[in-house]
Amino acid sequence: LRAVIYDGTVQFDPGRQRPEPGRDEILVRVTAAGICNTDLEIIRGYSGFSGILGHEFCGVVESSGPLRKKRVVGEINIGCQKCRLCLNGLEKHCRKRSVLGIINKDGAMADYLTLPARNLHMIPDSVQDDEAVFIEPLAAAMQVTNQLRNAGDAQILVMGDGKLGILSAIALKQDFKNVTLSGKHAHKLDIAKAFDIHAIHKDDLIQNSPFYDIIVEATGSQDGLHEALRLVRPTGTVVLKTTIAGESRLDLASIVVKEIKIVGSRCGPFPQAIKMLAEKRINLKPLITASYPIEKALQAFEHAASKESLKILLTF
Amino acid sequence: LRAVIYDGTVQFDPGRQRPEPGRDEILVRVTAAGICNTDLEIIRGYSGFSGILGHEFCGVVESSGPLRKKRVVGEINIGCQKCRLCLNGLEKHCRKRSVLGIINKDGAMADYLTLPARNLHMIPDSVQDDEAVFIEPLAAAMQVTNQLRNAGDAQILVMGDGKLGILSAIALKQDFKNVTLSGKHAHKLDIAKAFDIHAIHKDDLIQNSPFYDIIVEATGSQDGLHEALRLVRPTGTVVLKTTIAGESRLDLASIVVKEIKIVGSRCGPFPQAIKMLAEKRINLKPLITASYPIEKALQAFEHAASKESLKILLTF
Repeated sequence: LRAVIYDGTVQFDPGRQRPEPGRDEILVRVTAAGICNTDLEIIRGYSGFSGILGHEFCGVVESSGPLRKKRVVGEINIGCQKCRLCLNGLEKHCRKRSVLGIINKDGAMADYLTLPARNLHMIPDSVQDDEAVFIEPLAAAMQVTNQLRNAGDAQILVMGDGKLGILSAIALKQDFKNVTLSGKHAHKLDIAKAFDIHAIHKDDLIQNSPFYDIIVEATGSQDGLHEALRLVRPTGTVVLKTTIAGESRLDLASIVVKEIKIVGSRCGPFPQAIKMLAEKRINLKPLITASYPIEKALQAFEHAASKESLKILLTF
Repeated sequence: LRAVIYDGTVQFDPGRQRPEPGRDEILVRVTAAGICNTDLEIIRGYSGFSGILGHEFCGVVESSGPLRKKRVVGEINIGCQKCRLCLNGLEKHCRKRSVLGIINKDGAMADYLTLPARNLHMIPDSVQDDEAVFIEPLAAAMQVTNQLRNAGDAQILVMGDGKLGILSAIALKQDFKNVTLSGKHAHKLDIAKAFDIHAIHKDDLIQNSPFYDIIVEATGSQDGLHEALRLVRPTGTVVLKTTIAGESRLDLASIVVKEIKIVGSRCGPFPQAIKMLAEKRINLKPLITASYPIEKALQAFEHAASKESLKILLTF
């Protein structure tokens, strides 16, 4: 099969061996895959991963059984199913977990992948392949809303006009009236504005008057949290989305003195994301910068790493 | 009046001018004061403060009016009473606030202090002066419990066997069954054990099996939060109590990947703390290492800075 692999460098491999589904696993033929910032971090050596890249995908089930020929997306964490965390509904936090295309498990940038049946979700016909690829990152964006109960008419700032920042702002806008997105790329801010989001250049944030009740930090920068702590109101909440390798410097006393709450936020609920797309509440196609056939994966990764791009897709 | 002042160095001043109460303010004759770690940080240059030190006290009202001759303790934050934060019940977070003995306001280590009437709380006869000095730090410790709703039978670890760590463990023990205190001073751990707290040396924490649902970080160390993030379970909570000058290095990705919640925690509710002492639910006297007359303040500060001491009191 054709595959995009990382093994110190990114390579396109036209003749990789087709994977054999393990016990409880399903064989899925991939029809589309997305490039995520995590993939870009991996190819910078972020995680020590080697193998087939990719964890955002849409595909069709090849295995026999009730799911055969169904269009599916898949949750990416595979826990041991035995530990205290798995048994308490925290499989995505299992310490022995593998993660599709991220930890010890070949990923989605290939003609075929395998995943446990429990990880798969069918998608309705109304959701096209290139929208379905967004379900994983949209779920991660919607996780922010799930972690912000009872926030009412909060003033929310999403920092960062990358894929995750814009998706988070779009998801929050479904439930909150006052959502501001800050960034530094005019055309990305324009895309957010088309979703009725108040989008401003980061230099135009009111520098000396912190007043945001909730800040979603999705800058992908070492300094993002430091800036968020400055801009959030006392007793406010900072939702941390940025996963970046290495350590950051932080004035911890400000967290205590302002009694700020910081909430780490990772993967989210697939069913909610599928429902939002199925109901046509949002159209994410404006976030697609370009699609490349899998043979052009190196070019696609280069495009994805450029500052001006948002979502880059691979097609099969 | 006699006063302990900081102005680059700590000094005892036997002839300081008696303060004039401002509008809305009450004159209080101080009968006892405590030395807090914040005072030790101030005399290391933490805050740029200069003036009379001290914010933990018990006293008697000298001004005429309904409070005259009443025994009182006092909340330490004095907001502008006009800004959005003050008007929303967040006076302790007012950006123009002064803070007794900490920011722009002469403190409690003197024969007399002044505070707005709204800051004062009467204390019942059943609470002695040397217990009443604990009301401010006990309230800060109880704030942790207030920030941990619905934690049920959580496994709680308090890191740090200093004054704030032990007080936090004592306060938490009132509401939670499973409270562990970790530290590195055998005799301080013994004091905690007398409060029925499971107290262990920090080296005996289970290094490779993070399982605490909630960790209260009160080590006073730059590395405390880093260690707490390692020991807390995924989706667990770290309550941050340590206020230490300067920046810490932190692996922010672990907060996101483990979806940890970090909650900054500062001052707390006086009425709750007064009630707990009035009802004799706890006896804090074992936490008093020594008392010194105010004239011996320099000696008292030296004792407070030594590793083996817990609370040091000044008497008048």
